[in-house]
Amino acid sequence: MLPGSHRAAGLLDDAALVRAMLEVEIAWARVLGSEVSLDGWVPSLDPAEVEAAGNPVLPLVSALRSRVTGSVHTGLTSQDVLDSALMLLARGALERVAADLRRVARALAGLAREHRSTVMAGRTLTQFAVPITFGLKAARWLAGVLDSLDELDVVARSLPVQCGGAAGTLSRAAAAVDPVEAASAFAGHLGLVWPGLPWHTSRGPVTRLGDAVVRACDALGVMAADLLTLGRPEIGEVSEAAVAGRGASSTMPHKRNPVLSVLVNSAALQAPQLGAQLHLCAARAVDERPDGAWHAEWPALRRLLELAVVAASQAAELAGGIEVHAGVMARRVADAAPDLLAEQGGGTDPAAYLGAAESFVDEVLKRWRDRG
Amino acid sequence: MLPGSHRAAGLLDDAALVRAMLEVEIAWARVLGSEVSLDGWVPSLDPAEVEAAGNPVLPLVSALRSRVTGSVHTGLTSQDVLDSALMLLARGALERVAADLRRVARALAGLAREHRSTVMAGRTLTQFAVPITFGLKAARWLAGVLDSLDELDVVARSLPVQCGGAAGTLSRAAAAVDPVEAASAFAGHLGLVWPGLPWHTSRGPVTRLGDAVVRACDALGVMAADLLTLGRPEIGEVSEAAVAGRGASSTMPHKRNPVLSVLVNSAALQAPQLGAQLHLCAARAVDERPDGAWHAEWPALRRLLELAVVAASQAAELAGGIEVHAGVMARRVADAAPDLLAEQGGGTDPAAYLGAAESFVDEVLKRWRDRG
Amino acid sequence: MLPGSHRAAGLLDDAALVRAMLEVEIAWARVLGSEVSLDGWVPSLDPAEVEAAGNPVLPLVSALRSRVTGSVHTGLTSQDVLDSALMLLARGALERVAADLRRVARALAGLAREHRSTVMAGRTLTQFAVPITFGLKAARWLAGVLDSLDELDVVARSLPVQCGGAAGTLSRAAAAVDPVEAASAFAGHLGLVWPGLPWHTSRGPVTRLGDAVVRACDALGVMAADLLTLGRPEIGEVSEAAVAGRGASSTMPHKRNPVLSVLVNSAALQAPQLGAQLHLCAARAVDERPDGAWHAEWPALRRLLELAVVAASQAAELAGGIEVHAGVMARRVADAAPDLLAEQGGGTDPAAYLGAAESFVDEVLKRWRDRG
Amino acid sequence: MLPGSHRAAGLLDDAALVRAMLEVEIAWARVLGSEVSLDGWVPSLDPAEVEAAGNPVLPLVSALRSRVTGSVHTGLTSQDVLDSALMLLARGALERVAADLRRVARALAGLAREHRSTVMAGRTLTQFAVPITFGLKAARWLAGVLDSLDELDVVARSLPVQCGGAAGTLSRAAAAVDPVEAASAFAGHLGLVWPGLPWHTSRGPVTRLGDAVVRACDALGVMAADLLTLGRPEIGEVSEAAVAGRGASSTMPHKRNPVLSVLVNSAALQAPQLGAQLHLCAARAVDERPDGAWHAEWPALRRLLELAVVAASQAAELAGGIEVHAGVMARRVADAAPDLLAEQGGGTDPAAYLGAAESFVDEVLKRWRDRG
Repeated sequence: MLPGSHRAAGLLDDAALVRAMLEVEIAWARVLGSEVSLDGWVPSLDPAEVEAAGNPVLPLVSALRSRVTGSVHTGLTSQDVLDSALMLLARGALERVAADLRRVARALAGLAREHRSTVMAGRTLTQFAVPITFGLKAARWLAGVLDSLDELDVVARSLPVQCGGAAGTLSRAAAAVDPVEAASAFAGHLGLVWPGLPWHTSRGPVTRLGDAVVRACDALGVMAADLLTLGRPEIGEVSEAAVAGRGASSTMPHKRNPVLSVLVNSAALQAPQLGAQLHLCAARAVDERPDGAWHAEWPALRRLLELAVVAASQAAELAGGIEVHAGVMARRVADAAPDLLAEQGGGTDPAAYLGAAESFVDEVLKRWRDRG
Repeated sequence: MLPGSHRAAGLLDDAALVRAMLEVEIAWARVLGSEVSLDGWVPSLDPAEVEAAGNPVLPLVSALRSRVTGSVHTGLTSQDVLDSALMLLARGALERVAADLRRVARALAGLAREHRSTVMAGRTLTQFAVPITFGLKAARWLAGVLDSLDELDVVARSLPVQCGGAAGTLSRAAAAVDPVEAASAFAGHLGLVWPGLPWHTSRGPVTRLGDAVVRACDALGVMAADLLTLGRPEIGEVSEAAVAGRGASSTMPHKRNPVLSVLVNSAALQAPQLGAQLHLCAARAVDERPDGAWHAEWPALRRLLELAVVAASQAAELAGGIEVHAGVMARRVADAAPDLLAEQGGGTDPAAYLGAAESFVDEVLKRWRDRG
Repeated sequence: MLPGSHRAAGLLDDAALVRAMLEVEIAWARVLGSEVSLDGWVPSLDPAEVEAAGNPVLPLVSALRSRVTGSVHTGLTSQDVLDSALMLLARGALERVAADLRRVARALAGLAREHRSTVMAGRTLTQFAVPITFGLKAARWLAGVLDSLDELDVVARSLPVQCGGAAGTLSRAAAAVDPVEAASAFAGHLGLVWPGLPWHTSRGPVTRLGDAVVRACDALGVMAADLLTLGRPEIGEVSEAAVAGRGASSTMPHKRNPVLSVLVNSAALQAPQLGAQLHLCAARAVDERPDGAWHAEWPALRRLLELAVVAASQAAELAGGIEVHAGVMARRVADAAPDLLAEQGGGTDPAAYLGAAESFVDEVLKRWRDRG
Repeated sequence: MLPGSHRAAGLLDDAALVRAMLEVEIAWARVLGSEVSLDGWVPSLDPAEVEAAGNPVLPLVSALRSRVTGSVHTGLTSQDVLDSALMLLARGALERVAADLRRVARALAGLAREHRSTVMAGRTLTQFAVPITFGLKAARWLAGVLDSLDELDVVARSLPVQCGGAAGTLSRAAAAVDPVEAASAFAGHLGLVWPGLPWHTSRGPVTRLGDAVVRACDALGVMAADLLTLGRPEIGEVSEAAVAGRGASSTMPHKRNPVLSVLVNSAALQAPQLGAQLHLCAARAVDERPDGAWHAEWPALRRLLELAVVAASQAAELAGGIEVHAGVMARRVADAAPDLLAEQGGGTDPAAYLGAAESFVDEVLKRWRDRG
């Protein structure tokens, strides 16, 4: 029922989480020398058992053990499996977010280039300021997206495996294998990073991931909010692409609501609280494994990732379809010239008072090209 | 996969929301003079259409119109339907929360009565303070729960119908019916309150509901957090009831994790962010209907209600099964008597230094009895 | 340096808090039978001592004891003094907020009356919807303010005294006086309410206060955000009053920034996080007095109250000076008539398609008159 | 009145902000070719003028212009000055935080080394798990601190100057100087980084700074919360250093409250909401400069920096004084051996079931040594 959630279908839902937990258990079984082949089997877990265990891992392991011979899960704790599985989900989500941010970037780079010198009114504190170009506006949105891409790259490359056993000492694993080598091999099988020690109570990996994702939503939110303002009928300088059936009203036939902008804006209003939730959980990660803070972390992380996957996908479609009404911009600039040039002390040609606008566009476009 | 979510099954999920929206549409159709009988029909909505409309109402109305003759939805806007449907879901959720809070209250009242004079160590800033009784502790938890019950009663009795049409003027409805009478009748059919005017952008009804629910979680969270501390093995003054299969560890056979306390504690760490989300949306409820703030509100409200339903149900089971180890309390009080009586300037009988503890217990028990 | 903070000068700063704590200590001394006369003496507290004690009460009591004879503070704990003092500050702040909200209400009622039938474009999801009147918009803002006034009244009348002693049993006080009578008398001297038992760990009084204040900020924020939109130069349907020297730009001579709207909007963006902070602290109010949650509560509460005092004062000035450009509204309505009347299926007279707009205005004005 | 705020004295208060704004104006004046010498002059700003301008920059510039000849401020906008000044304050704050985190790290490294093999009970979900060593616990706290140090280094080295003029085009500056060269020189004079374009509406620099600071508070909060638990009298495995006069109670003579732990814990409960505030402001950074979101950002940023400076300083003192009660740990381990060794399937020597605990200690100590 959440508009756009189909864009994240299969990535972060319960079934995806179960599959990721299985992948984690299989990788660990390999470390233990077991060969587990599941042939696509995915168990369905009894919610009452999930609650009784406090998390879905124990029911999953029971189901698994009833099916395979050989050592399974031995030496891990539930949190090892769930944290690692969430990192696998995060990897998939980040790939999608990054791919869609690149689509946003490509579209914005095109707009920045095309409208490098398309003069429009600058607006600060809602009022006319000095002239800018639409290319500069697109370039600024693009700069935020490029910053996010860089940051998400770093985060995606350092997603860690969790591997600590009952209390972060790998006590039981150590009885059978070299624990540090095992943790490294485990990470290798999953394509995750072994950070050198468990992070059961040191939740930097989660908050860094979360903060980067919130920051991506912030950047998309600014774009969406600006488009909503510029697309007001009284301003009319841009529109969302018209798509048959989209943005219709249940009562007003003429209406074409800027649905994608609205939804991306809405995501940006939600992400900060989810990021704060992750930090709170990090600050309460007590003892060797905490008494509630970890449990409060998963739903926030999954929801935040879903929000970002959906918003980035919507933003890609949105950015790819922005209609720029250069004629409206030009008429407004002409009408508002006295205000736009007041700083200059007068004059009649806003296009001659652009300062470094175009060189800033070039600067951002260069960053985009240099990304390759 | 969220531990305990089965406790809210059917109350707040997508199917429940669709049913509630249908109930709203049928009530409005009655106002318009249409008789709609659906015989249990519930449409499944295409997620792409939900996104294209920005919300699930338009696809629902299309499905409905293809099935019934007579006027349907005419004069309403999507927000009328969704807001009213969410209030119906809230009503159901609040009933469950209140019923479970009463179970919590009953259990705590029993403990307060039984342990009115069971002396235990008071602790402030983690250190021994003066003696209290376990009955006083239970009574204080109970006081928080009683406050919540009172507040939830008020909120539940004032859940409003939303009825404003496209821009809060009931313009189209007014062409056919007396709009204010229609709104009143609409409310009557749904068992909701007509507040005199639409609240599309005046979100007090949502934040008051949300704040009351967060406050309920706060109260339960304090109980859970206290139980977690008192149930630490080194303290050992209370335990969660032992339930076969509950609280087992995936690796340590002796373990009996206080799962319900952990989960209730976890809920209390999550509720404040959801409440803040609702306020943010309220503060951004601009124009006649806003450009994203409303869309950010539904998921937070549904999630908050679900969290509270689950936490209250868990808390009822938890409170009903608290095991009090009065012997441990007594030994600790004896051992710590010098600290516990330092304020008094010495002495040897903590039971003689309880101040108003027992009369405070009586005060809270009286409040509980007076509720009837 | 925070714009507008002078509007709360003397209400919530450190000096005001020290004075309030002294008032609390004096009231308690009276309960103990001491007569304390300070002749305007206010101690300055050593910050290192404040930190060493974890709060300012102990240094204050030391200073006080060095100055007066007779019993002082005996039987109270620091939290009794600080909580009660914060309630005194809250009372002063709420009085100011309520007085300013009444000024806002009066101004909005005037606008609602005057512009009951001033047709303007309705806007939803940023796009034209059906016509409304500016009076309806003002009435909706007013409805939010009236709700807040009602709620703040209730909160202000129930601000509680804190009185529990070391661990909420009034153990030491009970050695000298009847503890419950003493608590009642204490409340009476301070003009606060004795709620029947201490609330050291049951923080409903704080979160209810906080939530009501956040809700007031939400209501003012909607007004400010709408004014910002309607005051954009391309829309131009309202302006903030021009005040010499206000809203000037450091670089653009023509500029008249809508400073009050910006600042009220800014406050509304801040209040929800402060409200969430209070709930978090409430959920972590463990033991007989907690190990950090209480300390995290005071700065959030003081900051939230200050924010509301300042925002309400700014909003009063803002609402009193709203300039309505009815001619611009009329021209826009004429130009946009096809869109505004699309729901009706055509027509040319937006003034004839107002639905219940005017009766909703009357409804809200009646509520305002009924307040007396 | 906030316990510990004297630890940040002079760093982030209004006077420091005014001095930083002056430093920014002087640096820009140099870029313009003016030589401004103030001889320690610092203006006091009229709060009413600050509000009228919406920020303190315009009153400051007026005061400055009345005092110096030559161009001052020309080409900048208020936000350039205030953003840059806040980055200067952030630099100073980060230096202090980092220095104190290094003190924390040094103390924790000492504890990790000394107690590398000091066996203690591991605890998960509040219950006994397998044995760990106190050195491992210290090493885990240390790992969080080292992560923060790394991250704060990166942030501190990239603090950007703000330089965009009225609408981010450097329009007016461009009339007199090469705008990009000017911005670079400006950055150089201030020791900040010129990021290639203005970031009036691209608030990554603020949220990255904020997130890193919140993460530092998270890490310190975990240490403080663990110390609070381990220092409970029933557990008694560590204590805060006894300092004369610290942690006294206003009523109980025996009490030694763990004040520093309480205050650091309290800071960690506050930081996440402040971080969320910064993200919200970032997501609402609309137009060329926004209509309230920027105004909501400064107080959150200043408060967050102050919180971190104070908490890091308190944490340094706290970590330097941790008293480890190895005898208590040993007795507990002996008593709880059956539980601690249940995973192993029995046994009597917890010291022989430490898994990789000691090698994890070595891993973290190596990281610390490698920092040099």
